Amino acid sequence: MKREKILEELSLKTESKIVLFVMDGLGDLPLEGKTVLEAARTPNLDRIASAGACGLTDPVFMGITPGSGPAHLALFGYDPTEYILGRGILEALGVGVEVGRNDLVARGNFATIRDGLIVDRRAGRIPDEENAELCKKLNAALRPIDDTEIRLFPGKEHRFVIKFHGEGLSDRLSDADPQKENLPPAYAQALSAEAERAARAANAFIDQVTELLSDSPRANAVLLRGFATYPTIPTLGDMVKLHPAAIAQYPMYKGLAQLVGMDVLPVGPEYEDLFLTVEQNFDRYDFFYVHFKKTDSYGEDGNFEAKKTALEAADVLLPRLLDLNPDVLVITSDHSTPSLLKGHSWHPNPFALFSRIAQPDAVRTFTETACAQGYLGRFQAKQALALMLAHALKLNKFGA
Amino acid sequence: MKREKILEELSLKTESKIVLFVMDGLGDLPLEGKTVLEAARTPNLDRIASAGACGLTDPVFMGITPGSGPAHLALFGYDPTEYILGRGILEALGVGVEVGRNDLVARGNFATIRDGLIVDRRAGRIPDEENAELCKKLNAALRPIDDTEIRLFPGKEHRFVIKFHGEGLSDRLSDADPQKENLPPAYAQALSAEAERAARAANAFIDQVTELLSDSPRANAVLLRGFATYPTIPTLGDMVKLHPAAIAQYPMYKGLAQLVGMDVLPVGPEYEDLFLTVEQNFDRYDFFYVHFKKTDSYGEDGNFEAKKTALEAADVLLPRLLDLNPDVLVITSDHSTPSLLKGHSWHPNPFALFSRIAQPDAVRTFTETACAQGYLGRFQAKQALALMLAHALKLNKFGA
Repeated sequence: MKREKILEELSLKTESKIVLFVMDGLGDLPLEGKTVLEAARTPNLDRIASAGACGLTDPVFMGITPGSGPAHLALFGYDPTEYILGRGILEALGVGVEVGRNDLVARGNFATIRDGLIVDRRAGRIPDEENAELCKKLNAALRPIDDTEIRLFPGKEHRFVIKFHGEGLSDRLSDADPQKENLPPAYAQALSAEAERAARAANAFIDQVTELLSDSPRANAVLLRGFATYPTIPTLGDMVKLHPAAIAQYPMYKGLAQLVGMDVLPVGPEYEDLFLTVEQNFDRYDFFYVHFKKTDSYGEDGNFEAKKTALEAADVLLPRLLDLNPDVLVITSDHSTPSLLKGHSWHPNPFALFSRIAQPDAVRTFTETACAQGYLGRFQAKQALALMLAHALKLNKFGA
Repeated sequence: MKREKILEELSLKTESKIVLFVMDGLGDLPLEGKTVLEAARTPNLDRIASAGACGLTDPVFMGITPGSGPAHLALFGYDPTEYILGRGILEALGVGVEVGRNDLVARGNFATIRDGLIVDRRAGRIPDEENAELCKKLNAALRPIDDTEIRLFPGKEHRFVIKFHGEGLSDRLSDADPQKENLPPAYAQALSAEAERAARAANAFIDQVTELLSDSPRANAVLLRGFATYPTIPTLGDMVKLHPAAIAQYPMYKGLAQLVGMDVLPVGPEYEDLFLTVEQNFDRYDFFYVHFKKTDSYGEDGNFEAKKTALEAADVLLPRLLDLNPDVLVITSDHSTPSLLKGHSWHPNPFALFSRIAQPDAVRTFTETACAQGYLGRFQAKQALALMLAHALKLNKFGA
């Protein structure tokens, strides 16, 4: 019997409340002998770790560095090696494009073509403003193809997201991108019969764009890759009867939360807005995913000090979550982003579960090595959902 | 998506170097209060454990005592419950028989037959020299069967390995061995149609031998079991783009390394020859499997003191590996061989991973119980490969 099926059968609808506070990229490696968690002053995190049960989680499996997509799916209870999110979907979520059941999305580049060959896959990295202008112009001029509507969403420099909206669009398409320069552009190929309608739409779009941009000096062609339809993931409501809310300030995380059926709540731009939004909506939901971004951003920048300051700022605000008296409060990260590595890494996430009925362990500080000594041990992140549900008394007994 | 497939897709070819130092049978149980690791003076192992990340590995799963085959496959990154090595292959590797893609091997016994019944399945445990003589005589006299060539390789006492070399030989054969005495000898039965050619060869061989040995007083029959062809295991090159070398002094380990595509390097018989061979070939490979045998041999003998002395001798030499500055150095064992039990056991293996980007933990000595407190936790040995690759920066990110 599969884990998801067991959870589905055992889960109960109750009034109890779970708060999952995700400090993105929190896990770290020592710089001058200390990790950010070891160097920072975090009395509230330490209090939560002392009172709760701690451990370390692997988002995918040991040694695997996850992107934000798989890392979050795992935290939401899904096996990230089973639910694979297409690149197009992740890109769309990242720039805040809403994607629905009848949408097909892909990542796009504006490119430069000359004498039938792609001479620059990035059209000279045109400025964002030029990109936005081009998308606007194309959106106004593009004609639907077979009742399929097409819309471009500008990203940074030469990048955009394209969304095809219509019935029967499959993502079983090859990239319309030769990947290298000095080659002719490529059409999308249907990789199975059901994708022929989508291939027709993608290729007619390419032809329309090439015509519309024929007098443009640099951005006169498009490359499309990572075609993806809306993934079929059971919602947290269907799977475990939760009524969940997401409180996140960046599009990628709002998008990921929406994929698993969370209500994405409006939230202001400051750290404290995250906490205010939980407070204001605490009666309305039974599960709150709260996403704190800056620990990851500064880790990516290799800025140890700024990561530490962001962490300390979050720590100061944590009592506001405790004051709400949730049945379960989990503090963890989706993946590690050590400033030493300036990027995501495979190192496991510190994890603290605070609940009236958690087993307190010997862990007294919320750090990587302290959590390694915790009662929860080292476990796969996808297991955290059942732990949270259990401590909120939202799971029936398995068997008699 | 399967673990192996994920590793294959994410793995990168880089210049970074990994050294996997396997101290066979290292894990131990206390005798007079201390394990060998606790009783021995091992300053270098302790230094590596202090600077690195530690844990405990289960070769197969908790409670399972592995043979050398599954234990090594796990360390090399393969699921030992999925890739099953036939007994014939393991026996062949153990006595140093080279096995290739068109070979079928089996374990053999010389036996005594009288009046059509097997009266001694071991032919009175004939001396090794008599065994060698018999194999020599038979190898000179045996005729090929259907273009299948046959060759015997003597083992200890009554044991030998037989190798059939030819096209289209399947190992879907029943044992040609009634398993009990006072029964008539048995022919091999083809268990599927594709194995008929192999059954014909095996049974014609039995008939030839019975004729050739008819005037031998004791060893006048043969029993064959554990038919096995060369297993189809993806190489470490195909799976994760490694160019690996094996430095081992015993045939079994050379054979296992060869099965997963390692180059088996010539090495002298002394402990220090292992280290010398790594030094001499350090520029030529990106992965080194180094096998230290004596901790297992003395464990099997129940000789605690000798196991301790062997361990201390290895410890003295370890700085030579550190001096090479590998990106990753792992020290572990394939399985435990407590001298208390005089054999392999299911107790997990102490594991230390040393790397510039490993998370140092609170472990300060390389012992069984100290490793249980380590940051890596308790994990399946097959996961070690991804950990080693990650710390050598040989894995891309999973998803976006």
